[in-house]
Amino acid sequence: MIVELVSTGTELLLGQIVNTNAPFLAGRLNELGFSVLFQTTVGDNRDRMRKVLEIAMARADIIITSGGLGPTQGDITKEVTASLLNKAMFLHEESVAHIQRFFDERRLCMSDNNLRQAMMPEGAQVIENTCGTAPGVIIEETTAGKVIINLPGPPHELTAMFEKSIVPYLVERFGIQGVIMSRVLRTYGLGESLLEEKIKKYILTQANPTLALLARNGEIHVRITARAASEKEALQLINELEGKIRPLLEEYIFGIDDETMEQAVGNLLLKQNMTIALAESCTGGLVTSRITDIPGSSGYLAGSFVCYSNNIKISQVGVPEEIIAAKGAVSRETAEYMAEGVRKEIHTDIGVGITGIAGPGGATANKPVGLVYIAVDGSAGKVCYEHYFNGTRTNIKHRTALAALNHVRHYLLTI
Amino acid sequence: MIVELVSTGTELLLGQIVNTNAPFLAGRLNELGFSVLFQTTVGDNRDRMRKVLEIAMARADIIITSGGLGPTQGDITKEVTASLLNKAMFLHEESVAHIQRFFDERRLCMSDNNLRQAMMPEGAQVIENTCGTAPGVIIEETTAGKVIINLPGPPHELTAMFEKSIVPYLVERFGIQGVIMSRVLRTYGLGESLLEEKIKKYILTQANPTLALLARNGEIHVRITARAASEKEALQLINELEGKIRPLLEEYIFGIDDETMEQAVGNLLLKQNMTIALAESCTGGLVTSRITDIPGSSGYLAGSFVCYSNNIKISQVGVPEEIIAAKGAVSRETAEYMAEGVRKEIHTDIGVGITGIAGPGGATANKPVGLVYIAVDGSAGKVCYEHYFNGTRTNIKHRTALAALNHVRHYLLTI
Repeated sequence: MIVELVSTGTELLLGQIVNTNAPFLAGRLNELGFSVLFQTTVGDNRDRMRKVLEIAMARADIIITSGGLGPTQGDITKEVTASLLNKAMFLHEESVAHIQRFFDERRLCMSDNNLRQAMMPEGAQVIENTCGTAPGVIIEETTAGKVIINLPGPPHELTAMFEKSIVPYLVERFGIQGVIMSRVLRTYGLGESLLEEKIKKYILTQANPTLALLARNGEIHVRITARAASEKEALQLINELEGKIRPLLEEYIFGIDDETMEQAVGNLLLKQNMTIALAESCTGGLVTSRITDIPGSSGYLAGSFVCYSNNIKISQVGVPEEIIAAKGAVSRETAEYMAEGVRKEIHTDIGVGITGIAGPGGATANKPVGLVYIAVDGSAGKVCYEHYFNGTRTNIKHRTALAALNHVRHYLLTI
Repeated sequence: MIVELVSTGTELLLGQIVNTNAPFLAGRLNELGFSVLFQTTVGDNRDRMRKVLEIAMARADIIITSGGLGPTQGDITKEVTASLLNKAMFLHEESVAHIQRFFDERRLCMSDNNLRQAMMPEGAQVIENTCGTAPGVIIEETTAGKVIINLPGPPHELTAMFEKSIVPYLVERFGIQGVIMSRVLRTYGLGESLLEEKIKKYILTQANPTLALLARNGEIHVRITARAASEKEALQLINELEGKIRPLLEEYIFGIDDETMEQAVGNLLLKQNMTIALAESCTGGLVTSRITDIPGSSGYLAGSFVCYSNNIKISQVGVPEEIIAAKGAVSRETAEYMAEGVRKEIHTDIGVGITGIAGPGGATANKPVGLVYIAVDGSAGKVCYEHYFNGTRTNIKHRTALAALNHVRHYLLTI
């Protein structure tokens, strides 16, 4: 079953709001086995909305609109849908009562406009709105066998109505369309094309499961998606393919699905019963903040230093003044002293030192913006990595944070 | 000039990511006077993408695609566009050199796949990508006078390319279509409905300029949008309305347009020639990281401490052990000692102490998740604020960071 989502609303066309209804509906419909192949956004204009719905009727089996069910003159989605299907509109008494009750409960006065929300296309199935005044609508068009569903625009109303009424309707009407399941292998450290090279033969021969590579904020996600009659079968297909590609990417995979790099690092620290402290310069506390995004991180993180100035690098984590003078604050040596110093000062198993040039100023003849040194110190000794990152100041901070977390991860895996 | 935005990518159809490119492009194009009347999303499928582009060609003058310019086999947007317009593809040597340079600068190895990104439709204008490897493309289709523009999918690449190359192209090619200008007054500290009450009479009588309230991550943005024949006229309209509403909201307005709270704090510190240091517990370094997002922040921030454990609060910023025992680590007193301690330790004008319960664990009978104390210490003495925030762990961290920055802003405004 092919689905098209039609989002209506001038505020979407003006770019004033981000459309979160479409990804919500798409995600849920895919889980139920429906194929969402098109998403269209159109404004509150009768002609253009009608044409968009005509195109959708021609290429999809189910059309789900969102928005335009409110009480104002600009809310026309139901009317345009009814007119396209040659249905008259009538006043739906139950909806009038529902809307009246909604206002009474809130000690508010109902205006005549609100009655527009109770006007329904002939033959429509009216769907109760448990979070607002605008009912939804399901219309089955019998000639071509299409279904049009009108949902309200406010995300909490749409979400509630979809889960409570539309999912049961779709399952009842179309049966479960089999299942589509996905698993994401999150990788770091290998570029998109090199990664593709490594698993090319599985990408070229893919059918079911499919394989997709997605670049995400410095990570590359490998998504395995399987379609099958049951969850069990889908999982088996995914496991089989994962079994083949994982050995090719093992050292780059840090997490599964929603597992972040900081979660992976936290899990390793907990497992090895180890603690960590950081001395951050160019990242300004970002890495420690990410580590503390994980519930329970107080179990392995006692504290960190943001050592932005040279003086603080000297006074708080004991970088020798002569090292900064001779090698610079952005140097392998400074990073190593920072890692060692913070580890000693906070008495942890692992110490991390990060120093670099986040830009846009601060570059010298030999040290460009984006040059970063990341050192890790622990019982297995010190390691230090040199990186050249690009992008804006915040891009460079973000990339440095991700790299630092990954270096810690590798350090923990090898001791 | 009618524009259609075509977003490509299976991950959009699957609902795995939210489309932020479309609202960005729509917002900017509207400001330039173009009418974005349609937005369509389609997957990486040749037939369907071609049909979507055919429909777009029939109803829009300018079609802007995003996504599908990467190096992998799934990246087909340029090819589909070229095939639709009957253009052959050729290897664009300058792009090869650009991509090669990109890899060289990062000491990375380029793979053959990357050459796909240098394949261009005949007669295309190739647009440099300053943030990545995939060049953009402008193709003028002469028969029907349409323009197709292919932009890369990653938002930072798309944004940079649009501002740097596409805006100048559109203005040069089509002229300015009248102007729409906006100004955003960024406020913090007043809820949306209370704020609306304060400026209600201007909201009810709005025509040109229009007024919109937008809730954004704990801030409320008041957007004034004027349409006029010239920039000068539009600015005048905006200035007039701002002059009326600003006095009603003065204490809540911290910035204009893109000015963030950390930028506002940084500007005040620079202006008053003051320095700052923070002792962060529940925010884990997030506030310091946000302060260091601003270029030049090394001028006022020397360093900070993340004091996650009680021991570090005691050893690094001198919170008395008996205070923690008697009042708790999450208390007004601890926050005040942290602010004073870090100010003394780092020798700054302003010290900030933040302690709270980010959750989901850690609540006690008297201290719920979301309870946060923020203290500011300086020459004007100590102040401490108690907050109850709600939401997830990262929500609470984010809200605490925003509140802390705003408290510092108010402190700086009153000394």
